[in-house]
Amino acid sequence: MKILVINGPNLNLLGKREPDIYGSRTLEDISESLIKLAAELDVNVVIKQSNHEGEILDLIQNSAEYAALVINPAAYTHTSVAIRDAIAAVGIPTVEIHLSNIYKREEFRHKSLISPVAHGHISGFGSESYLLGLRAAVSIANAEKNTS
Amino acid sequence: MKILVINGPNLNLLGKREPDIYGSRTLEDISESLIKLAAELDVNVVIKQSNHEGEILDLIQNSAEYAALVINPAAYTHTSVAIRDAIAAVGIPTVEIHLSNIYKREEFRHKSLISPVAHGHISGFGSESYLLGLRAAVSIANAEKNTS
Amino acid sequence: MKILVINGPNLNLLGKREPDIYGSRTLEDISESLIKLAAELDVNVVIKQSNHEGEILDLIQNSAEYAALVINPAAYTHTSVAIRDAIAAVGIPTVEIHLSNIYKREEFRHKSLISPVAHGHISGFGSESYLLGLRAAVSIANAEKNTS
Amino acid sequence: MKILVINGPNLNLLGKREPDIYGSRTLEDISESLIKLAAELDVNVVIKQSNHEGEILDLIQNSAEYAALVINPAAYTHTSVAIRDAIAAVGIPTVEIHLSNIYKREEFRHKSLISPVAHGHISGFGSESYLLGLRAAVSIANAEKNTS
Amino acid sequence: MKILVINGPNLNLLGKREPDIYGSRTLEDISESLIKLAAELDVNVVIKQSNHEGEILDLIQNSAEYAALVINPAAYTHTSVAIRDAIAAVGIPTVEIHLSNIYKREEFRHKSLISPVAHGHISGFGSESYLLGLRAAVSIANAEKNTS
Amino acid sequence: MKILVINGPNLNLLGKREPDIYGSRTLEDISESLIKLAAELDVNVVIKQSNHEGEILDLIQNSAEYAALVINPAAYTHTSVAIRDAIAAVGIPTVEIHLSNIYKREEFRHKSLISPVAHGHISGFGSESYLLGLRAAVSIANAEKNTS
Amino acid sequence: MKILVINGPNLNLLGKREPDIYGSRTLEDISESLIKLAAELDVNVVIKQSNHEGEILDLIQNSAEYAALVINPAAYTHTSVAIRDAIAAVGIPTVEIHLSNIYKREEFRHKSLISPVAHGHISGFGSESYLLGLRAAVSIANAEKNTS
Amino acid sequence: MKILVINGPNLNLLGKREPDIYGSRTLEDISESLIKLAAELDVNVVIKQSNHEGEILDLIQNSAEYAALVINPAAYTHTSVAIRDAIAAVGIPTVEIHLSNIYKREEFRHKSLISPVAHGHISGFGSESYLLGLRAAVSIANAEKNTS
Amino acid sequence: MKILVINGPNLNLLGKREPDIYGSRTLEDISESLIKLAAELDVNVVIKQSNHEGEILDLIQNSAEYAALVINPAAYTHTSVAIRDAIAAVGIPTVEIHLSNIYKREEFRHKSLISPVAHGHISGFGSESYLLGLRAAVSIANAEKNTS
Amino acid sequence: MKILVINGPNLNLLGKREPDIYGSRTLEDISESLIKLAAELDVNVVIKQSNHEGEILDLIQNSAEYAALVINPAAYTHTSVAIRDAIAAVGIPTVEIHLSNIYKREEFRHKSLISPVAHGHISGFGSESYLLGLRAAVSIANAEKNTS
Amino acid sequence: MKILVINGPNLNLLGKREPDIYGSRTLEDISESLIKLAAELDVNVVIKQSNHEGEILDLIQNSAEYAALVINPAAYTHTSVAIRDAIAAVGIPTVEIHLSNIYKREEFRHKSLISPVAHGHISGFGSESYLLGLRAAVSIANAEKNTS
Amino acid sequence: MKILVINGPNLNLLGKREPDIYGSRTLEDISESLIKLAAELDVNVVIKQSNHEGEILDLIQNSAEYAALVINPAAYTHTSVAIRDAIAAVGIPTVEIHLSNIYKREEFRHKSLISPVAHGHISGFGSESYLLGLRAAVSIANAEKNTS
Repeated sequence: MKILVINGPNLNLLGKREPDIYGSRTLEDISESLIKLAAELDVNVVIKQSNHEGEILDLIQNSAEYAALVINPAAYTHTSVAIRDAIAAVGIPTVEIHLSNIYKREEFRHKSLISPVAHGHISGFGSESYLLGLRAAVSIANAEKNTS
Repeated sequence: MKILVINGPNLNLLGKREPDIYGSRTLEDISESLIKLAAELDVNVVIKQSNHEGEILDLIQNSAEYAALVINPAAYTHTSVAIRDAIAAVGIPTVEIHLSNIYKREEFRHKSLISPVAHGHISGFGSESYLLGLRAAVSIANAEKNTS
Repeated sequence: MKILVINGPNLNLLGKREPDIYGSRTLEDISESLIKLAAELDVNVVIKQSNHEGEILDLIQNSAEYAALVINPAAYTHTSVAIRDAIAAVGIPTVEIHLSNIYKREEFRHKSLISPVAHGHISGFGSESYLLGLRAAVSIANAEKNTS
Repeated sequence: MKILVINGPNLNLLGKREPDIYGSRTLEDISESLIKLAAELDVNVVIKQSNHEGEILDLIQNSAEYAALVINPAAYTHTSVAIRDAIAAVGIPTVEIHLSNIYKREEFRHKSLISPVAHGHISGFGSESYLLGLRAAVSIANAEKNTS
Repeated sequence: MKILVINGPNLNLLGKREPDIYGSRTLEDISESLIKLAAELDVNVVIKQSNHEGEILDLIQNSAEYAALVINPAAYTHTSVAIRDAIAAVGIPTVEIHLSNIYKREEFRHKSLISPVAHGHISGFGSESYLLGLRAAVSIANAEKNTS
Repeated sequence: MKILVINGPNLNLLGKREPDIYGSRTLEDISESLIKLAAELDVNVVIKQSNHEGEILDLIQNSAEYAALVINPAAYTHTSVAIRDAIAAVGIPTVEIHLSNIYKREEFRHKSLISPVAHGHISGFGSESYLLGLRAAVSIANAEKNTS
Repeated sequence: MKILVINGPNLNLLGKREPDIYGSRTLEDISESLIKLAAELDVNVVIKQSNHEGEILDLIQNSAEYAALVINPAAYTHTSVAIRDAIAAVGIPTVEIHLSNIYKREEFRHKSLISPVAHGHISGFGSESYLLGLRAAVSIANAEKNTS
Repeated sequence: MKILVINGPNLNLLGKREPDIYGSRTLEDISESLIKLAAELDVNVVIKQSNHEGEILDLIQNSAEYAALVINPAAYTHTSVAIRDAIAAVGIPTVEIHLSNIYKREEFRHKSLISPVAHGHISGFGSESYLLGLRAAVSIANAEKNTS
Repeated sequence: MKILVINGPNLNLLGKREPDIYGSRTLEDISESLIKLAAELDVNVVIKQSNHEGEILDLIQNSAEYAALVINPAAYTHTSVAIRDAIAAVGIPTVEIHLSNIYKREEFRHKSLISPVAHGHISGFGSESYLLGLRAAVSIANAEKNTS
Repeated sequence: MKILVINGPNLNLLGKREPDIYGSRTLEDISESLIKLAAELDVNVVIKQSNHEGEILDLIQNSAEYAALVINPAAYTHTSVAIRDAIAAVGIPTVEIHLSNIYKREEFRHKSLISPVAHGHISGFGSESYLLGLRAAVSIANAEKNTS
Repeated sequence: MKILVINGPNLNLLGKREPDIYGSRTLEDISESLIKLAAELDVNVVIKQSNHEGEILDLIQNSAEYAALVINPAAYTHTSVAIRDAIAAVGIPTVEIHLSNIYKREEFRHKSLISPVAHGHISGFGSESYLLGLRAAVSIANAEKNTS
Repeated sequence: MKILVINGPNLNLLGKREPDIYGSRTLEDISESLIKLAAELDVNVVIKQSNHEGEILDLIQNSAEYAALVINPAAYTHTSVAIRDAIAAVGIPTVEIHLSNIYKREEFRHKSLISPVAHGHISGFGSESYLLGLRAAVSIANAEKNTS
């Protein structure tokens, strides 16, 4: 079972900037933890990051080999109808995650365009959100496999 | 380490009514899974359910012995400023969970009064939301213990 | 055939306070009329009143023996997602009634959270609303019996 | 005692189109039931239908001989200030009825321009709404007669 | 010089109903005053009333012989884009009048669809609004004649 | 195959008034072009115009013999729930057209009550909108015939 | 009978600036016309202008000797609750006038804080608005005298 | 003269939690100050606290022996139509108080459902709000006694 | 200790106009009561009134010698960002008072621009609001003195 | 005459995913139909697709050789001010098309940022929308050629 | 070339109060810097400050001798339609400046009534905003001189 | 000291298209003026333009060597949360500039997502906005250098 993890814009700066909001762990640290947990759960994870909306669309469109998608859409959470449409079109089971609790931040971050097409979402637990997201993805991928 | 799990109004009907929205597992089934996972994680869970907003306030106010709170506020998510204030007043680390993805449902369910005072929230994974919520609660309780 | 009639908060004051808005008949007077009409229509009515949202939830959850519910949710009409969810969860055919025409009153009373889960509603006819509500409840309960 | 029943636009199609929303009974079927119930209640009913807003205004303006009005304004419920003004100007006791529960339908159908000038309203009971409406009209006409 | 005066829906009831809002003068009384003032100002007035939106459209479309239009659109003030479009299409100088001060009444009466296509408007002076409207119409018709 | 074309209020003034907005072609010119194209496409067109909302309702209700409807609802686009309901009730495949691009005009013209019940809509191409509308109507009528 | 005419901010610039919006007549020209009409109607007018909100309040508070007030509040129309309160407190019959049709201008000019406390208003007729305003003021002052 | 003081949800935590918002004085401290001031003013106070909306309703309904009510509705300020209706129904002169200045806090705390049925309100003075509230209650109770 | 009391626009009319809203006591009556209470509390009060926003700004800017400010901003409550900024800039402890309960009045009076920069506010107790306001001002001035 | 056809994000998935919304024809099928119709109309079409907003901007900026643009902006319809600005800047006659009727879908799809800068738009006819769009583009390109 | 600089309400307190928001430089310091830069740019500056809206109107109305206006409207930015109208009436080229970045402050400060009539605006650079504003004013005054 | 200047989408068309809105100077002309002023101020400028949101993110993320950023985000001003987040994450002092006064244009251009994270902004002075922006950037970069 393969799981795709997509990181949206500016997440390559994680751990290097604004640690009071996003924590001090880098994307590399998080990736390592994810790979370790994946091994434990006996699945493979492939982890991507892009600042380009179009590249993220391409990644989602070409995700046929994956059993589920874990996505932290970052700033595109609030503006990208295109990512929403790609997820809906491809039909891949999707877990939306956020490092920070978006409901404690500015008003315009309270509305996610992605949530209505995601299976579920997890936010506010820092890098732990990724690990919970991977567990959730594996769980819904297994459920899906059993019902098909 | 003790974790308190509070279930809001109508959740005693779980598995008996509207299984297409809330799944077929009863609150008893979920409680069993929680207790099993708690054992695995080496913590204790105490699980409560109430239809009365006042009783839920009393539970939160008397939670001094617990390291963290996992709460599914159900219908009170959208209407109870009092539960929000109780969580903020008591200052207990709190994980808000929901069985269904509230962003796929009616407009008035998209707004949670609890989210801004919770540490994080998890929704949409059915009974799995409880297990992820317990893991998250243990994780933030551990982090808190280490920093104090 | 048994019909449950639930009266929400402050309705115990009926006839004693603000007769210009709610009329001069007490809840006891209305209950008598209801019982008399029930006899005519050959059904049983059980009539309850509570100021406590949680108690109303309990009443609805334990209504399995009733063929239909007539409810005057009073102030909870506009604030209780929990009562709405209970009616939807239990699936009992429900007639929402109001003594006054809520659309002639303050803006915040124009919106009912209960209406979308009720079969129909009746408002503005004073104590007559109860009698029309009972007739409606019997009619939809009969229809339901015939189609099942 | 004479009661006027006015049916608004498209109600002449009742029972012929969209039976899943409006039921399978035609306007003729409903009229028969109304006449039968009127006989029982010892009143006369006169039943009209028009697709023309202006004609409905003329009907209301010329209703001096009637003790009460039962009106299903259909689509004009949401757009006709003129019908609202006519009812207010003429001062005839008015019962607003709807076949469907308008609060379960599109957002723009939730707002009735007629409700604030009607005595009360009844909706959601299919053709039964007409019978309850006639009973309500007789009841308020009697009350009015007694107080004058 | 000929001036057309159009009265919208329900104005045929003037003086007969709700005198506290609309005054005790009938449409006939007002017409007489208008004719008398017209004689003084040396113009002709033609006065119409209709409850039918379509008929009012026809009147406006066929107003080529008139130098100006005085219109009390009554309830159609707030709902008729069609009357607005007819006035704009025909390009006749138009004075919008109201008996009552519409800004003292319900919120939905504060917005006029006709005002942006009228030359000016006058409201709140009871039957005097008609006389001021006629004076205004003559004044702008004269101004127009002089500039052409 | 017969196609019905309905023109709403004020369209009888086309080409005579405000040519900068609506172009210089009259409704007669457009009708000729439509008839010519209909011949080319081997269908019949019947073309109507009315300023009366009620008459337009009657036309739609009596359209059983037509395969499709092309309608330019003009001002009623934004105000007529009744025309919307008639189209939905009759179930005739409907193409909504507009001469001007309604999204370049006043805010209140951006919202069409008809669009959600139409098969599709076409706007902004002047009299060409009618010809494109006829082609679209024939195309969807053919598709419907094939699937039935 | 004495009538007070108050001109709000920037009206001292009339006829000197932006003649396309406000016309080419100066405040002195308008004052002359007013005095001439006043003589005709056998009343006295006193005409004031101020750019200072506080001075306008003082003028209204000291208007006991006047039978009526004609006010063009200009920019303060949309922002001065204080002028509104002064008019209501003093209780002087008030005619609100505007040179331009405020409903053809920017959105924020559509809302008048003064209208709900004025007897009526007149707008869009350029300097003619003042003359119509004076006639209206005399008419309502006479009516008031007769009823007292 | 007897005065009832009702404290809403979470106020039992006063002085124990979030002293930066609510001050360091406990409900017991405040009660003592109130009793002392009551003695000075020669009145009796009865002081209650409840987390249960229904219990607060019962307290208000049974307040016949009291001359006035001082209420700090806390979180129910913003959500309880039922408490509002109870105060209006019982008709007891009511002073609404708040410890903090609710207009400096979150947007949703700016709107009080209780204010429109209260005689007046006082907020922002910490525990001093209670003392001012008691003085205000005595003052209006005295005024009422004198006018009856 | 010196306390400054500022009265906003139209308050010089108190007791002379609209006694049903503002009571029958004049500003002089209130001033006398204030001076008497000040003596009792052993403080000095200086009482000002102005209709001019700019003068009120000057008063606030020159309040260095006062320990606290009691202000009834009247109509400027809802429109003056400048008074708000002056209070914030000067940093004087401020008590906002109103004679009437502003939440029982028009919608636009519900929003105070002053509240967020005031220490607290008191409204609805008629002239008693001033006395409570003075007590509150003395109390917060004392608290401030003690903490500095 | 050359016509440019631009397809926005996710349209490369056409016919492969969600056929119930977008139909079963692939972008290749549609392209073939377009080329065939272009031959019939004696024009050339160039057809592009991109998931990248920046690439679509580049295509529009470099469209100097084309007589008209047919664009299906897909998800960017609702979010791209940049595409809107590019069309306005380049000034190319533009036809906006959509496969589905966007007014039958989610609220956020009802608003198009592109419509106000397009010549006209066509939506709801499936792949037929493209053919109607090409006809419309040729028609307006011809009209433009004739007037220049 | 003469440039007028107007400072709105409370700016006379600059540098004396709230230095964390507005900086530590006084209005006198800023004036000196302005005069020095003016000398460099070979223009004259006249610098005014007023707390009175009416005085600011008078200053703008009497600005005929100035080539351009630099205005910091302070609190009147958000409330004064009168200042906006004065600038538009006088037609003087105007640069709006602010010390602080108004978009980082309270919501009600985000909307400027002055911006739509100003040539441009500059905000957020502290006292540097004045110097940039003077440069901008000279630049647009020169451009205007060249085109006339 | 090095300053980075970023130009957003469609700005490569400057001077070639819509000169009435954006002026007749090309991006090359502006770049030359910037380089000349930079020499005068003894700083270096690097000037970039891109139509791709992702490329602009990359530029901002890699701006470590620059003392300040001058950005004209063009269309992305209103839609890009990602650019906002990048500026906030990198923490570079930023001056937002616009050629046109965005407050004189369409409503949707009034709201900038960038302003709250910029140090200040400048708009409406055409190409002069760039020169003022460079001066502002140097000024804040110097200030920052001095405080560190």
